[in-house]
Amino acid sequence: MMNQKILLAQRPEGFPKTSDFKLVTSSLPTPAVGELLVRTLYLSLDPYMRGRMNDAKSYAPPVKLGEVMVGGVVGQVTASQHPTFQAGDFVEGFLGWQTYALSDGKGIRKLDPNLAPISTALSVLGMSGLTAYFGLLDIGQPQAGETVVVSGAAGAVGSLVGQIARIKGCRVVGVAGTDDKVDYLVRELGFDAAFNYKTTADYSQKLKELCSDGIDVYFDNVGGPLTDAVFKRINVRARVCICGQISQYNLARPEPGPRFLWKLIEQRARVEGFLVFQFAERYPEGLRQMAEWYRAGKIKIREEIAEGIENAPSAFIGMLQGKNTGKQLVKVATAA
Amino acid sequence: MMNQKILLAQRPEGFPKTSDFKLVTSSLPTPAVGELLVRTLYLSLDPYMRGRMNDAKSYAPPVKLGEVMVGGVVGQVTASQHPTFQAGDFVEGFLGWQTYALSDGKGIRKLDPNLAPISTALSVLGMSGLTAYFGLLDIGQPQAGETVVVSGAAGAVGSLVGQIARIKGCRVVGVAGTDDKVDYLVRELGFDAAFNYKTTADYSQKLKELCSDGIDVYFDNVGGPLTDAVFKRINVRARVCICGQISQYNLARPEPGPRFLWKLIEQRARVEGFLVFQFAERYPEGLRQMAEWYRAGKIKIREEIAEGIENAPSAFIGMLQGKNTGKQLVKVATAA
Repeated sequence: MMNQKILLAQRPEGFPKTSDFKLVTSSLPTPAVGELLVRTLYLSLDPYMRGRMNDAKSYAPPVKLGEVMVGGVVGQVTASQHPTFQAGDFVEGFLGWQTYALSDGKGIRKLDPNLAPISTALSVLGMSGLTAYFGLLDIGQPQAGETVVVSGAAGAVGSLVGQIARIKGCRVVGVAGTDDKVDYLVRELGFDAAFNYKTTADYSQKLKELCSDGIDVYFDNVGGPLTDAVFKRINVRARVCICGQISQYNLARPEPGPRFLWKLIEQRARVEGFLVFQFAERYPEGLRQMAEWYRAGKIKIREEIAEGIENAPSAFIGMLQGKNTGKQLVKVATAA
Repeated sequence: MMNQKILLAQRPEGFPKTSDFKLVTSSLPTPAVGELLVRTLYLSLDPYMRGRMNDAKSYAPPVKLGEVMVGGVVGQVTASQHPTFQAGDFVEGFLGWQTYALSDGKGIRKLDPNLAPISTALSVLGMSGLTAYFGLLDIGQPQAGETVVVSGAAGAVGSLVGQIARIKGCRVVGVAGTDDKVDYLVRELGFDAAFNYKTTADYSQKLKELCSDGIDVYFDNVGGPLTDAVFKRINVRARVCICGQISQYNLARPEPGPRFLWKLIEQRARVEGFLVFQFAERYPEGLRQMAEWYRAGKIKIREEIAEGIENAPSAFIGMLQGKNTGKQLVKVATAA
């Protein structure tokens, strides 16, 4: 048996290309005392990974050239010399874009496959779910009857944010990039309204139409001109949760935008950026609540599944282009 | 006796001119039952007034053409048919740019001239003081040992913000527009450092030099390129208090700026705009604390005093140009 790894081959200029990645094969490591070997079943593909491909100081160090790409994985333990884990266990952790990974058990979470499909540990019952839960509820503090706008609304996080806001009694308006996604948000996920930003000429006018009472909470995954338009429509004491800025990640050079700080004064509004990690101590609370809603059918998910580790780069690029609805996964192997 | 009023004669395009104002004379009104007549002693000149000269919807309605300019006043009651006020009383209220004003007593605060010079009811013991107190402490939440940067630091609000931050044990760096102001901040007000943005080519580099541990709290009165540079230096969980954006008020057309929302994610930082009015229920607390610090000599103030209501427009324009250090007042009459 061999390990297949996807390395960062070169740093992208602008939009990543498949040639920025490199698939290599190496021999399978053997766990030493205190270690376990995990076979990847599902790899999670997420926008934050684009940031790690840049050689820029940020909240986390960049992936080095020639290193395995970072990423969340659901896998199965194939061999263990670690007291907590046994061969056959299902686990989740940041094990990277590879078919097997050695781990010392730190940050590895054991999964119960009877509670929910194991792939959900990468979406609703994992980082996407926690990001939506804490970002919306703690940073956004939505109140029943308020209007919540979500950008990237059909993505892994956005689709959950909108559903949580609905559970909390808010009016929810989603923004997505295809008519199919817009239909999905409104017909399947129960958003009150949604629009396709790619076929909308005047975002500000559209937001005015769909948010006649203004915007109380904005959950931003996207940034750029859409976010500029949202700032024009925020209500007094509005809260803007900055989760992602995917429209900006692949620009060769940063684009300027309209200044909006005066608007924050006028509306006494707050803008706050967050990273899910800052809520680490409260993950159990978030997972418990998301699991309850998910099992009660109050939160639905959709997974887009690419097949084979070798297709991770193209699936990742597709996700950055907005090709997926819901969570983008790569199925790497089938459980034993 | 006649009343002299300064009216808004035309809406400024870009920077206001004295011809945007008009001095008119009218007969002195007589208070009816429930009213009082106040003679203006001091008129406060503040940046927010520039916003009221525009015909734009904002948190407060604009001054109409031909209306008396809005403004805070310290005055003396000359005649009263109001149960709370008597002739001779010193009062403070939003009575406008005029030598006399009729009032129904709403929003009028009686002053005790034995506690502090009456003009302080327009600065440290009035709106400027309350803006600094609540803006810094409630929105900024500075902790001892943190680095606080203040723009417009030698202005009426900024000079108080820096001193409050010092009282709270913070390291304080001020930004102002003349070398004299910089000297004043450091030598007289005890700021740890300050710089003249008009003679500094690279704000970002200067902030790096003066804030070697990064910036935890930024109190912004100014906006524009200085604020852009501050965002590059904010620390994890930084708080940015948006009080004013005076660099933007007189632009004929808005200027774009660099997008910084990604930085908020990276640093899990918060930006919040505020208006002092949102703290109205807590004004007594703010005034009590500011008075205690002021009387204990922990907070110093400077007043720039123009003479004569007819000079209010030029003094106002001078304030927008940054000619004043500390509070810009107009002395309109001497107390009886």
